[in-house]
Amino acid sequence: MSIHSIKRAHTHLAWDNSISPVIKVQSGDTVSFSCLDASNGQITKESTVATISSLVFSQLDQVSGPVYVDGASPGDTLQVDVISVDTADWGWTGLITGFGLLHDEFPEPALKIWKLNKEEGYAWFDEERGIKIPLRPFAGEMGVAPGKKGAFSTIPPYNTGGNLDTRQLTAGSTLFLPIEVEGALFSIGASTSHDGHAAQGDGEVCGTAIETPMEVTVRLTVRKDRPFTRTPHFQAYQTNASNDEYYCTTGINSDIREATRSAVRNMINVLEAEFKMDRVAAYMLCSVAGDLKMHEVVDMPNYVIGMMLPQSMLQGPSAANA
Amino acid sequence: MSIHSIKRAHTHLAWDNSISPVIKVQSGDTVSFSCLDASNGQITKESTVATISSLVFSQLDQVSGPVYVDGASPGDTLQVDVISVDTADWGWTGLITGFGLLHDEFPEPALKIWKLNKEEGYAWFDEERGIKIPLRPFAGEMGVAPGKKGAFSTIPPYNTGGNLDTRQLTAGSTLFLPIEVEGALFSIGASTSHDGHAAQGDGEVCGTAIETPMEVTVRLTVRKDRPFTRTPHFQAYQTNASNDEYYCTTGINSDIREATRSAVRNMINVLEAEFKMDRVAAYMLCSVAGDLKMHEVVDMPNYVIGMMLPQSMLQGPSAANA
Repeated sequence: MSIHSIKRAHTHLAWDNSISPVIKVQSGDTVSFSCLDASNGQITKESTVATISSLVFSQLDQVSGPVYVDGASPGDTLQVDVISVDTADWGWTGLITGFGLLHDEFPEPALKIWKLNKEEGYAWFDEERGIKIPLRPFAGEMGVAPGKKGAFSTIPPYNTGGNLDTRQLTAGSTLFLPIEVEGALFSIGASTSHDGHAAQGDGEVCGTAIETPMEVTVRLTVRKDRPFTRTPHFQAYQTNASNDEYYCTTGINSDIREATRSAVRNMINVLEAEFKMDRVAAYMLCSVAGDLKMHEVVDMPNYVIGMMLPQSMLQGPSAANA
Repeated sequence: MSIHSIKRAHTHLAWDNSISPVIKVQSGDTVSFSCLDASNGQITKESTVATISSLVFSQLDQVSGPVYVDGASPGDTLQVDVISVDTADWGWTGLITGFGLLHDEFPEPALKIWKLNKEEGYAWFDEERGIKIPLRPFAGEMGVAPGKKGAFSTIPPYNTGGNLDTRQLTAGSTLFLPIEVEGALFSIGASTSHDGHAAQGDGEVCGTAIETPMEVTVRLTVRKDRPFTRTPHFQAYQTNASNDEYYCTTGINSDIREATRSAVRNMINVLEAEFKMDRVAAYMLCSVAGDLKMHEVVDMPNYVIGMMLPQSMLQGPSAANA
């Protein structure tokens, strides 16, 4: 297995299967990406709110890549093991006019610059009030090129991934993406580093989290045995004392209810395909033991909803085993 | 403080402020309710799927009460401390035609009868596969009468509560409901007893959970100091090893996105009203540390979405202190 690295300059601003890969790797190889923050370097630790007002939108949410994975074909699944995520010592959170769940109620731009205490793993939100945010960084964007021709904005997430903004995708987690083109053409964006708490941070409601430059290392493996991966799925751990492991299927749609239905349907498909569970039983299991998460509600026009089940309930030859 | 009890016969099938109270209590009193399951006794442990097909819908989701709480006036908040929830030794989960998130994809009725191992606190979902569901019972319905005249179905939840189906409302939790009529007129329904796991069970996607008869005891207290309670709020513990405490505001609406916006707006209101936090800072805090939960997505036409923050981030004279 080889180790590769992608420099900051190798970015693109749309998901587009006509973009030439910057590197070709073998299945099982490890790739490190050096990424600017989601403002593509427009915001620095010296920035003020004036910078928010003058942001060039078309430059936001760049992703690094794409990486061509040998042997990846449409219908396969790309397994992305997140090995490490290392942030800068600063970050920003902004209110951008017209963006965010309550954008109409918060029309004025705002900017907060954070100092990230990487050694101790937290950032003060408000030192006087004693509110600090534990840091559990993740890459906000991970995706593969769509099969459809054209240039698709990196702002919304798609069934092929992209701006998932899913806080569970920290180091140690595994993301599964449906491959639609030869070589998969995987890219990653550093947009987000945050995470409040054991079960906090889902939603990213104001439109930004703690945005920061980062170095992300992932292992890319082609899987031929997961035809049921039609949206991003992932396997991760609860960041709580018991470190419970769970498996999650997502639904991605511009209608939240349809995204929710898709997430549930996808979990039923996993239980049926991998565990030979009767579909009615699977539906009931989702109802009594599944947890619906709103991963992302601001990257218009698409929402990301997740259906999570404890890994302990997925017995047998697990869908999530590497 | 007195202790009162409400018998199974004292039920009603609509939220309606013209229904006479069955009892009058003082603020701070404790009331025990004996409740049939959500089928109002139509399903028993001997039932088969044929019972589902012949269910009389107009008899479902009965609630016990109402209880008149002395001194409660419109604009006040009713604090409901859940003291204990005791279930029967059996329960049911059903697929009811036309009901549930994927009702169009699961048109056939189905019924599962569970044996609840109350001593050890679990029920087997599938003994052969080793899948069991930890039992953490809660009352699916808790609400007060609406200020508006008329009879409103007990199936959907409202801003005044009702069919919240929120699995966090187990013994030890505290629910806050906005009062719209003199005496509050509180009622409770035994609809649901389930809960999978540390962070599982949100959504109740197939439309039913583990439904069972139960005895529920609550303490009812009138609060004059919470004018910001305009939807149900609650305080509860994560059911994980670290027992993290959190505070949740809900949004209830027939549009999921509007329900989500309401949940976030309500948390911002709490942070502003109780903690004198700047609204922009509060919005950012929700984004980096708040967790959006889909509590209930099947009690048409209304959805219940929650915004949760760790109690540790709510400093000072907490909104959630009794």
